[in-house]
Amino acid sequence: MAEINLLFDELFPLCRSITGQGLRDTLTLLSEKLPLEVFGIPTGTQVFDWVIPEEWVIRDAWLKGPNGEIIANFRTNNLHILNYSTPVNEVMPLAKLKEHLYTIPGLPDAIPYVTSYYTRRWGFCLSHKQLEQLEDGDYLAYIDSEMINGELNYAHAFLPGESKREILISTYICHPSMANNELSGPLAAAFLYNRIANWPNRRYTYRFVFVPETIGSIAYLHRFGKQMKERTHAGLVLTCLGGQKKLSYKLSRSGKNPLDRIWQQMIAHGQYEGGTRPFTPEFGSDERQYCSPGFNLPVGQMARTVYGDYPGYHNSLDTKESMTIEAIQQSIDELESLLQMNEAEGCYINQFPYGEVKLDKHDLYPDMNAPATRFLSSNEIVDSRTQLNRILMLLNYSDGKHTLLDIAERSKCNIDGLMPYVQKLVEKGLLEGPFHEKGRELG
Amino acid sequence: MAEINLLFDELFPLCRSITGQGLRDTLTLLSEKLPLEVFGIPTGTQVFDWVIPEEWVIRDAWLKGPNGEIIANFRTNNLHILNYSTPVNEVMPLAKLKEHLYTIPGLPDAIPYVTSYYTRRWGFCLSHKQLEQLEDGDYLAYIDSEMINGELNYAHAFLPGESKREILISTYICHPSMANNELSGPLAAAFLYNRIANWPNRRYTYRFVFVPETIGSIAYLHRFGKQMKERTHAGLVLTCLGGQKKLSYKLSRSGKNPLDRIWQQMIAHGQYEGGTRPFTPEFGSDERQYCSPGFNLPVGQMARTVYGDYPGYHNSLDTKESMTIEAIQQSIDELESLLQMNEAEGCYINQFPYGEVKLDKHDLYPDMNAPATRFLSSNEIVDSRTQLNRILMLLNYSDGKHTLLDIAERSKCNIDGLMPYVQKLVEKGLLEGPFHEKGRELG
Amino acid sequence: MAEINLLFDELFPLCRSITGQGLRDTLTLLSEKLPLEVFGIPTGTQVFDWVIPEEWVIRDAWLKGPNGEIIANFRTNNLHILNYSTPVNEVMPLAKLKEHLYTIPGLPDAIPYVTSYYTRRWGFCLSHKQLEQLEDGDYLAYIDSEMINGELNYAHAFLPGESKREILISTYICHPSMANNELSGPLAAAFLYNRIANWPNRRYTYRFVFVPETIGSIAYLHRFGKQMKERTHAGLVLTCLGGQKKLSYKLSRSGKNPLDRIWQQMIAHGQYEGGTRPFTPEFGSDERQYCSPGFNLPVGQMARTVYGDYPGYHNSLDTKESMTIEAIQQSIDELESLLQMNEAEGCYINQFPYGEVKLDKHDLYPDMNAPATRFLSSNEIVDSRTQLNRILMLLNYSDGKHTLLDIAERSKCNIDGLMPYVQKLVEKGLLEGPFHEKGRELG
Repeated sequence: MAEINLLFDELFPLCRSITGQGLRDTLTLLSEKLPLEVFGIPTGTQVFDWVIPEEWVIRDAWLKGPNGEIIANFRTNNLHILNYSTPVNEVMPLAKLKEHLYTIPGLPDAIPYVTSYYTRRWGFCLSHKQLEQLEDGDYLAYIDSEMINGELNYAHAFLPGESKREILISTYICHPSMANNELSGPLAAAFLYNRIANWPNRRYTYRFVFVPETIGSIAYLHRFGKQMKERTHAGLVLTCLGGQKKLSYKLSRSGKNPLDRIWQQMIAHGQYEGGTRPFTPEFGSDERQYCSPGFNLPVGQMARTVYGDYPGYHNSLDTKESMTIEAIQQSIDELESLLQMNEAEGCYINQFPYGEVKLDKHDLYPDMNAPATRFLSSNEIVDSRTQLNRILMLLNYSDGKHTLLDIAERSKCNIDGLMPYVQKLVEKGLLEGPFHEKGRELG
Repeated sequence: MAEINLLFDELFPLCRSITGQGLRDTLTLLSEKLPLEVFGIPTGTQVFDWVIPEEWVIRDAWLKGPNGEIIANFRTNNLHILNYSTPVNEVMPLAKLKEHLYTIPGLPDAIPYVTSYYTRRWGFCLSHKQLEQLEDGDYLAYIDSEMINGELNYAHAFLPGESKREILISTYICHPSMANNELSGPLAAAFLYNRIANWPNRRYTYRFVFVPETIGSIAYLHRFGKQMKERTHAGLVLTCLGGQKKLSYKLSRSGKNPLDRIWQQMIAHGQYEGGTRPFTPEFGSDERQYCSPGFNLPVGQMARTVYGDYPGYHNSLDTKESMTIEAIQQSIDELESLLQMNEAEGCYINQFPYGEVKLDKHDLYPDMNAPATRFLSSNEIVDSRTQLNRILMLLNYSDGKHTLLDIAERSKCNIDGLMPYVQKLVEKGLLEGPFHEKGRELG
Repeated sequence: MAEINLLFDELFPLCRSITGQGLRDTLTLLSEKLPLEVFGIPTGTQVFDWVIPEEWVIRDAWLKGPNGEIIANFRTNNLHILNYSTPVNEVMPLAKLKEHLYTIPGLPDAIPYVTSYYTRRWGFCLSHKQLEQLEDGDYLAYIDSEMINGELNYAHAFLPGESKREILISTYICHPSMANNELSGPLAAAFLYNRIANWPNRRYTYRFVFVPETIGSIAYLHRFGKQMKERTHAGLVLTCLGGQKKLSYKLSRSGKNPLDRIWQQMIAHGQYEGGTRPFTPEFGSDERQYCSPGFNLPVGQMARTVYGDYPGYHNSLDTKESMTIEAIQQSIDELESLLQMNEAEGCYINQFPYGEVKLDKHDLYPDMNAPATRFLSSNEIVDSRTQLNRILMLLNYSDGKHTLLDIAERSKCNIDGLMPYVQKLVEKGLLEGPFHEKGRELG
């Protein structure tokens, strides 16, 4: 957790945007944790219905009051500057300046996060309290910025598995100094990468993607979308993984991909008290692009505290303290567990499907039938038959037509409630698997 | 509405039956409103399990009491005569006469509507109050009727559309002087025809059918059933469209035709407080024939006040006043709206399905992201994002696998809540459609 | 019922096991009621994952106390001897003897039923009360038993039907002197055989199987499983058919075989207040073998009072008095009725599917339409239209796509609520059927 905290503190001050040096610096810092391959797409490149915009260079900016006092300073908080502001260096009366000032009247202490990527504007963002204290007089608005022919950057890293089928983990890196709705996603992704890298084996290949939101995922899909359509087994967009609440999962567009099904079964059986949100293209993050109808990738979105759940959404109240590093840590734990269940999910095949297996031969059944053996799973295990019942379920339904999730459903438990018994049966040669496809023949 | 009222008054006095001059006169009057093609099927023609009966000629009828007073007179109210009565001219005591008298004891003021098409009988129908006042003595029963080799008549009219796929509107014209359970149907059909004729364009062809109930639709199916089986996209039998209640729809046999689905979604979202009745062959109108298993046409039935909902069912209390012309007018409005939704229903195809469309280019997105733009659909439209959300839904799900109805379902609105945005997106070249079939490829 | 009682009394004292003379004597007695073909599978034969064990010969056994008194005697109650005990003839102190004594502390009056088929042991079973009264001293344990190369026996009998498709009735015959959890099954099976033998005709072939539980059904499947997989239409394992409770049905593995569907519809409509248990391989009887994944036969299990429902489970409290012969008799009645519904279930085909049938021609409709005829099914039948409604349902849905069960579901009745009308319509030539397969063409 100390490591997460350290990286957070390095990343927080950077002035990220959908292009520019802040974005590149962010990727450089993340590269210390995972081997990112970084790409640059030149300004002017057509990506589907969009065009890569000019790169935004921001060097300095301030707003000086009638008495020479600094009202807002880019170096103090980069939220003070409307993201993608054009340059300005002009003295003007308050009335005219106000056309370029942005506040949140309902949150008088918060500096809003405002962007104008595709229409040229300049502007300053202030707390509403500060705005109300401004006196009449002449103000100097100074923004030393530039629009140049440059590039938009994104990056990815892979963890290869037995299969080319991929699990996508995607997150965005374009918001400036905000905690939950910016850094929680890339931090969770980077450290989750290291967890999965340490697994003894991986059935799936894992693709980690870091992009500026919307235009970045569209550009990424323009280059890799065809490949992803062929390979993606399931995926998650990570966003807003800080906060007090439990994880909340937004289903993929089909609502039926493997993670959708695992999550919903987990919730239905009360084994996790998180939330489930239906898919919608109306709002959200990059799942809107991955789930656009031409791609329709099996990708959902995972968050802990989403828009509407906390006052800091898109403003300066979104800080490390309001979010907590502990919450990110817990998100990583829970995401790892979910992905492990996904690794185990699939069809298993009973190798002795005709009649029941003679379980006592395999030390999986008591060798006597008496009142005292009625709650035993074997001669040794006194567990009210939990192991025995789950093994009987696994053997009966491992027929190539039911996946582990289907069997967990019938056993009224979660996939991880079956995983130890699956392992035992595979070791004893009674089950084979997991296989991806349904419909395999019985032995 | 004056026009509906006028036609009602002309049609009401006619003595309709399943054959005969009253039926033909009805079709002649309706022909003034829509270009009906009238058919005559000769007596004795076999139509499936049925045979066209002899035509009923009714010229005059009365019942004269012991003191020479007229008890019941065909010219005063044609319900007094059992429909399809054989001729009689006979004096008889009250006791014997009573075998030929029909009343409704539970509704002492109502003259019942009684028929005996296929078994030869004669009879008079009276209010129960009148029956109880009859004194002993000799009565003269006089019915000047005749059964002749003639024909059974039905008629149809078409409004051609871009496609040969047809929408069927069918109603019956065989009940004598009753309002809700006779004239509401043909009046609604005739004026609905004129509404649809005025649409700027029609995707479907509309078939309007006017038949005597049961035997008429069976005869019509005998001639046109094969064609209808090939062409019918959806259809409605119109009956009982007067009364205070909301429209109530009886589903087609499959329960899944386009109108079934549109109606049920409308009701499910509380956008119309009407009723939905399951399909049943046990009772109803001509949908029983259209939905017989050999044809199984996608045809439902629409009514406002059905059997059991009002005391006037099949008796003289079923008058213009108890039904109202206003209710028929409203039925026409609502039927037109339903058929317009059906015209819009289908698959649309997003022409830019890879990633999101860059909506600000098309004036469909605010050009800045700030606290103040959060409830805007575009730079101009302040609507809590209603337009923006529906457009995002339309673009994401217009993938050849979801119809407009599916998207309305996800948008928690009715089809007509999407229609203006569909039009906007089609005009801007972002959507193409509607297409009938699912499974079209994305661009 | 006297006949059932008589056979019960002959069968009860026999010392059955999974092999041996008691098993063979049981089959001999049952052979008086139905023509059983008896098979013997030699010791040492491999049947799937199992091996036929040595045959158990038990001649005599007793336990003699310090004062020479007989504590437990095989001839008094064969439950006193651990089933499959090895021979012993040894004097030993109470402390050592206790390692071989079995009781149920929670049911101090009951002698438990204990088995050790596959691990060699000897032992005596006592009531716990008796155990507590034993004094210190030397005891003589005497068991005159032997393990020999012999055979395992099972038997079957057939009732041929029009089709080779089979209904399986299977029950077990390996428990010694117990009533509900032993004799109720074979007694119900034997007398049910005679009921079905008396039916005027049989659509299906009936296979009656009598096996020792588990190893017996596995051995039976080893020989006949392939044939059964091809032929079995539905089946029932019969067990515990005595007791006060209503029948309770354990669904087959698919949960969708014909008996599963008939049973569930019966329960859903409240026409039988019995229970439905989901399929599980965790516990139960021979359906665990029939429903093992390699066979997956459409076989459920029927019981009245199951494990957990009565104190006598696997002990000497399971007597004729606690179970009653009347309950077995009622089980036979109810099983026969269920199988009759299954005989009627299938697709019927309306021979006049275009438009409605003209029902008055067939005496199935009133010949006049008047207030007084509104609740008639025909000129003669005053039944609130029950017959008429069911006939209209049968004719409309007998289209090759709906089975009798589907139509019963729509008619809100049980299959036997339609059976008399089906018969009437078949006799009049309006329906043909039943056919097994869906999808037959209309006439």
